[in-house]
Amino acid sequence: MSSTPTLTLARFVRASRVEDIPPAVVHEAKRAILNWTGCAIGASRHATVTRALAALAPFVGPAQASVLGRPERIDILHAALMNGMTSHTFDFDDTHLKTVIHPAGPVASALLALAEYMPVTGSEFVHAFVLGVEVECRIGNAVYPSHYDVGWHITGTTGVFGAAAAAAKLLGLSEQQLVWALGIAATQAAGLREMFGSMCKPLHPGMAAKNGLYAALLAGKDFTSANAGIEGRRGFANVLATDRDYAEITARLGETWELSLNTYKPFACGIVIHPTIDGCIQLRNEHGLRADDIERVELDVHPLVLELTGKTRPQVGLEGKFSVFHCAAVAIIDGAVGEAQFSDARVVDPAVTALRDRVRATVDPAMQEDAANVRITLRDGRVLTRRIEHAIGSLKRPMSDRDLEQKFRALCAPILDAAAIDALIAECWRLDSMQDAGALARMSVPHAGTGSAPTAEYATAHTTTRKE
Amino acid sequence: MSSTPTLTLARFVRASRVEDIPPAVVHEAKRAILNWTGCAIGASRHATVTRALAALAPFVGPAQASVLGRPERIDILHAALMNGMTSHTFDFDDTHLKTVIHPAGPVASALLALAEYMPVTGSEFVHAFVLGVEVECRIGNAVYPSHYDVGWHITGTTGVFGAAAAAAKLLGLSEQQLVWALGIAATQAAGLREMFGSMCKPLHPGMAAKNGLYAALLAGKDFTSANAGIEGRRGFANVLATDRDYAEITARLGETWELSLNTYKPFACGIVIHPTIDGCIQLRNEHGLRADDIERVELDVHPLVLELTGKTRPQVGLEGKFSVFHCAAVAIIDGAVGEAQFSDARVVDPAVTALRDRVRATVDPAMQEDAANVRITLRDGRVLTRRIEHAIGSLKRPMSDRDLEQKFRALCAPILDAAAIDALIAECWRLDSMQDAGALARMSVPHAGTGSAPTAEYATAHTTTRKE
Repeated sequence: MSSTPTLTLARFVRASRVEDIPPAVVHEAKRAILNWTGCAIGASRHATVTRALAALAPFVGPAQASVLGRPERIDILHAALMNGMTSHTFDFDDTHLKTVIHPAGPVASALLALAEYMPVTGSEFVHAFVLGVEVECRIGNAVYPSHYDVGWHITGTTGVFGAAAAAAKLLGLSEQQLVWALGIAATQAAGLREMFGSMCKPLHPGMAAKNGLYAALLAGKDFTSANAGIEGRRGFANVLATDRDYAEITARLGETWELSLNTYKPFACGIVIHPTIDGCIQLRNEHGLRADDIERVELDVHPLVLELTGKTRPQVGLEGKFSVFHCAAVAIIDGAVGEAQFSDARVVDPAVTALRDRVRATVDPAMQEDAANVRITLRDGRVLTRRIEHAIGSLKRPMSDRDLEQKFRALCAPILDAAAIDALIAECWRLDSMQDAGALARMSVPHAGTGSAPTAEYATAHTTTRKE
Repeated sequence: MSSTPTLTLARFVRASRVEDIPPAVVHEAKRAILNWTGCAIGASRHATVTRALAALAPFVGPAQASVLGRPERIDILHAALMNGMTSHTFDFDDTHLKTVIHPAGPVASALLALAEYMPVTGSEFVHAFVLGVEVECRIGNAVYPSHYDVGWHITGTTGVFGAAAAAAKLLGLSEQQLVWALGIAATQAAGLREMFGSMCKPLHPGMAAKNGLYAALLAGKDFTSANAGIEGRRGFANVLATDRDYAEITARLGETWELSLNTYKPFACGIVIHPTIDGCIQLRNEHGLRADDIERVELDVHPLVLELTGKTRPQVGLEGKFSVFHCAAVAIIDGAVGEAQFSDARVVDPAVTALRDRVRATVDPAMQEDAANVRITLRDGRVLTRRIEHAIGSLKRPMSDRDLEQKFRALCAPILDAAAIDALIAECWRLDSMQDAGALARMSVPHAGTGSAPTAEYATAHTTTRKE
């Protein structure tokens, strides 16, 4: 084979040594894994998860791996599915801003399941994670934006490659097997943006994790694919995108690291609303604002804000995440925009809707994606303004390690006790020196008596009518 | 919801009663199921199957359903995967000529697994099968040919809808749940034509069966999707095709039946080569031809023949299926083109390659897809010609029930004894009156002492390194 994007990635993953990864990238991997773990644990009681478990419980395999934050142990393929799903359920996971890929979910979910099944050190885990994210985001870079514009949920479609490559690294696949793993990933790439706002959105990174793991396991037993899964005439990049640039895959591979471009959300909703929320919370805190003091709130926003989150009157919690108006209102009233601000009750709370209906948003085509103007007119006639150049959580204003720990604690508090949360945080920071990466998963499981009980929905799943 | 293609299909599947299906369509369903069963049993020892089982055996769930023709019993999701895969491994399965969909694999594989898990009568099975094929092929009609031209393996991408709809019918899903099942199917639609010639090609209908079953199971527990999975702005038909006609989905639904347009292959390779093979076998049999008598073979063929099967010098068995030259040669030498003609040994047999290298093919843009001209020049100077207007196995010259039985026997002979084969054939013909459709699967399993033993590859799968 002459060198091609697929083969180049296979050779890179095969040849990479853990010493090749710069310390700053290793640290970013641990930040991403901490954030991913918190998101997955936090959403582990959501209806998306309980319904999926209720549907699939009768069919899962041996008790090999954990569903983060829950007592069930299931086969590694379904564990990868479930953890990929929970980590994206709150839409609170990490973001590779160049492509809007949420990188950690597909990759970490496949890896952690595997790390509970076979011996994997923390260092091997972090190394494979970095490689998986690199493969995933470089393929994303090559087809973004045309691929996304066509209607693909890029986290699902590129995540399957990242999961496949990362799992293949742990499994020690040969160069040819890696090429096949990428090909089997390519031919499973799926996930439509039409599904945004439904339970299928978090299903996508779960599918990517599971299907990427399938790809690596199959290729490891010499199940073949075409050699040009990415660049072939009828391969991924030609079929799922209208434009593509393979140099984004191959140029400076091993020298630059896409993980360095990863960001974390301080707020539990789409990233396009974050500058608005940031500005609202700043003005609220600085001026001790109360909703009753406010005549109106005016926002100048990037065009994507109204395209993606222009819902003026959300009726259920999930719709609140697609309403910049709701987000601005709760930011001012609560001073925080976490999952609590997206409960079904909160989006129809009269105190919230009264302020929400006084929020106006205007598109400014010249606005950067991580910028916004907030202008609050008070009933006493004063006008407060705030220009956000770079929202908190953006590359220019990243969340600190302490910010991430605080976010993690808030996510896990409904599920785990404080000691368990502290232990998990400590485990993430020292992950690269741990003997057994799989311990991270087991530490996420609530002890008897802590956290919420599994729902009745799961418990009854095994009673489905079946034959003797 | 106002009526849309997705909703129309959901309502149709929900409302359909078994009495609505015309007897001829029921009979065609039984023909399709017989053909599917034979293909799946016949390929059950192929490396595609043993490698996949070796990779996945450690992770499968409870012993709920059969892998046709094999002793293993596994969970229904993986059984659907395996049977979808085996039924397409020989490329010998049925074809909906309008769209080149192979309809039975995804639908029957999902249904039979379910029929081993819950009580399903033969009549319910046949009914759900007809509905699944209808959904699958109508969605295919709506996006063909642009969808295929983009590079999608349409059996994988539309099969997932058919499997979902059929399984949803058996599971008794509500109208809203059916809409979700179709949506969850849409967002899993995958499979690239780049993979043709590799093990991923048969993987596609397997994935479609498994993922369609996932869709129905998830929707049955109220796991939500978007409502417009097919026609939404970023739904299946807009994202995976450049042109689409929704009337193909909705017009005369319940009045016409796509299953009536199903065909079955007499030869174990891509349908585009069949007119050529038909002509070669006719001339061979009529004139008692031997390879040594032949100076050269000249073919006039439809343009797709060289696009899809233009490989001049295949090196392994699978490549032989993509070589019209190999197929013409073995048709003349052996008088048959079954799996035996696509062994690794046969494609490099000097007796075959010597004649193969004397075959020439010329594209005739005016040629119909099921037509070909064969012109054989003998060393004694005679020229024999045969015009095939409609190849055997085409809609105009369908295989008879007896032809299908003969094909079934040839496929199953290496696996099952004659009594077991007879019993299976009888079971297929009376399927709609059987109390337990799942019996079909169990009857496909060789008794101890019959057929080949499972391969060592599978037996060692459980020895993969794992933790205590």
